[in-house]
Amino acid sequence: MQRTRVVIVGAGPAGLLLGRLLDRAGVDNIILERKSPDYVLSRIRAGVLEQGTADILDAAGVGARMRREGLVHDGVEIGFDGDKCRIDFDGLIGRHVIVYGQTEVTHDLMDARTAEGGPAIYEAEDVTLHDFDGAVPKVSYVKDGVTHEIACDYIAGCDGYHGVCRASVPASAIRSFERVYPFGWLGLLVDKPPVAEELIYAHHERGFALCSMRSPTRSRYYVQVALDEKVEDWSDDRFYDELRGRLDPEVAEAIQTGPALEKSIAPLRSFVAEPLRFGRLFLAGDAAHIVPPTGAKGLNLAATDVQYLADALIEHYGEKSDAGLDGYSAKALARIWKAERFSWWMTQLLHVFPETGEFGRRIQRAEFDYTASSERARAVLAENYTGLAL
Amino acid sequence: MQRTRVVIVGAGPAGLLLGRLLDRAGVDNIILERKSPDYVLSRIRAGVLEQGTADILDAAGVGARMRREGLVHDGVEIGFDGDKCRIDFDGLIGRHVIVYGQTEVTHDLMDARTAEGGPAIYEAEDVTLHDFDGAVPKVSYVKDGVTHEIACDYIAGCDGYHGVCRASVPASAIRSFERVYPFGWLGLLVDKPPVAEELIYAHHERGFALCSMRSPTRSRYYVQVALDEKVEDWSDDRFYDELRGRLDPEVAEAIQTGPALEKSIAPLRSFVAEPLRFGRLFLAGDAAHIVPPTGAKGLNLAATDVQYLADALIEHYGEKSDAGLDGYSAKALARIWKAERFSWWMTQLLHVFPETGEFGRRIQRAEFDYTASSERARAVLAENYTGLAL
Repeated sequence: MQRTRVVIVGAGPAGLLLGRLLDRAGVDNIILERKSPDYVLSRIRAGVLEQGTADILDAAGVGARMRREGLVHDGVEIGFDGDKCRIDFDGLIGRHVIVYGQTEVTHDLMDARTAEGGPAIYEAEDVTLHDFDGAVPKVSYVKDGVTHEIACDYIAGCDGYHGVCRASVPASAIRSFERVYPFGWLGLLVDKPPVAEELIYAHHERGFALCSMRSPTRSRYYVQVALDEKVEDWSDDRFYDELRGRLDPEVAEAIQTGPALEKSIAPLRSFVAEPLRFGRLFLAGDAAHIVPPTGAKGLNLAATDVQYLADALIEHYGEKSDAGLDGYSAKALARIWKAERFSWWMTQLLHVFPETGEFGRRIQRAEFDYTASSERARAVLAENYTGLAL
Repeated sequence: MQRTRVVIVGAGPAGLLLGRLLDRAGVDNIILERKSPDYVLSRIRAGVLEQGTADILDAAGVGARMRREGLVHDGVEIGFDGDKCRIDFDGLIGRHVIVYGQTEVTHDLMDARTAEGGPAIYEAEDVTLHDFDGAVPKVSYVKDGVTHEIACDYIAGCDGYHGVCRASVPASAIRSFERVYPFGWLGLLVDKPPVAEELIYAHHERGFALCSMRSPTRSRYYVQVALDEKVEDWSDDRFYDELRGRLDPEVAEAIQTGPALEKSIAPLRSFVAEPLRFGRLFLAGDAAHIVPPTGAKGLNLAATDVQYLADALIEHYGEKSDAGLDGYSAKALARIWKAERFSWWMTQLLHVFPETGEFGRRIQRAEFDYTASSERARAVLAENYTGLAL
């Protein structure tokens, strides 16, 4: 039987970053991933890194390409029914975010793992957790038809919302909190320069729209759609027409269109599981919590969880103290709930909710007007968007 | 037929303040009030003046007793399920509020009107508005069985939510926005010193509680109750027990109890009518909008409306410009909606909503935790509580 200190389930950015941080501290670990590297890299996800996430990547020694190719954004624009205000992160609080695709982060982390020779087993089927409530947990998996088992000290569940780790916890030991929003985001990726230097978030009576980007030559656009919409009903032309209709006319006119590289509908969900520790199993990232994409907190929260968890494990092996491991769940959840709150708030502010009455719509408008008129309110938005302190 | 420039309907603080500001600028006006002065003074209402409201009272020459007897509060305490944080208005933004009962404000304004000899007709029955969509509006009323009529240039509707002015507007000309909350406040007034120097707002799983005051020897306490509660089912003892159960044990123990001077249940409502002008009729204060008492914005919004309206009328008569009158509705509504937003937010934060699910309750908690942890968030609360700029 193989043996390692930490089995990390999932080779998305959370699992790979945890592996990287542990490797650098000499804590041996094995990553198990159900899919192939190409599959993992093909998933199109968020692209906005909090300043603190960028710092974590730097400290992990995987920030070089991000610093070279990532786009520093000092602000975002928020539009509401034709009016707009800029949230000047730099001017308000001296912070920024970095636009750099999650796919690129994953790529950099995979390259680093390959270069260091850290074990990562892809296409590991039937991953199963054993005895994580005892002293010697094991993780089994099937690779090329052969069943393998790894004995370990700890298991890190970095395998996402649909992963096996959270599902392995007895229902009586876990509480979950959820809000499913009555709409989704239809996203389109296109190899054209972005319409503006900064992101544009827009509320329109027809629904929310977002002009985002992955690089100076690749744009990502989104429109809010009803949950029963099907992506095959949305030609590129229909998408661009709907997008333009929700934007300031000047912006709409300047959008450079092209064939979609990818087009998909993602539902919006808020979800938190509590606690994040079950014996020798720890959850981190999407395995433990989901945020709606408004505010771009998903990857950033995962990075923070992983930083906390890596610190705790390194402290355990280095200083022989379990204080970090014992405190991990509460510490991570405190930050998670604040990000959940912000993502929920920004979602409420910018989307059209079918169930919102006239009073609620005026309150939404008042929220925008207050934000636009108050430097203090904009500073609050900026501090949340660029990331609360660790 | 009598003639005046402005007929003011309602002798609450809004109507009296408007009369006062117009008097001082030489704009003659008559106040009509359905009730007696004693009745008006017997209504127990809010007691927290924004710094800007205090300035308006000073400028109206009725601030002397408020400055002498009012209590300057540099902060409030917000409690949540046993945790607490102080919102340090002074330290955060250099502002304060003044605790001075609405009854006292009304008293000072009545005294000033009496001293100046400004006409105020109390116990005016059947007040009826005529022709406010034409050039010469009239207001009729019955006093001691005799019908009187006043011709005027303008009518100011300062007669509250249930008043005749808003009700006189054709339904097709007015839009209203409303949220009725699924609970009320049971309030108790007692001649005992307040339990703390500053107000204590508290969320508890049994419901909201508030320790407020009117003076150094008179306290006002509130507990959230279901809408079907009856005040006669609440003995003083039961009230104090419920209140104490929702507060920090140290605070609960320190409360000085005594027989209730007044005890009543008030429902909580958010309401805004748009626009605020209909020909020669202008609405101000509760006639146009209601806020839930959380955040103490009712009287303060009325004072701001009245300041705007007085400025506009004085400009009309002095500078022969209608710009202020034409802009009144939009200008007042912009500030009103921001106060509605804040009152709604603070109500959401601190009350128990029967319909809120587990996720929503965690978001409520996260809102408190974020506020407690972020100086910027506390500054936003402080700027709203002490009053946004005019």
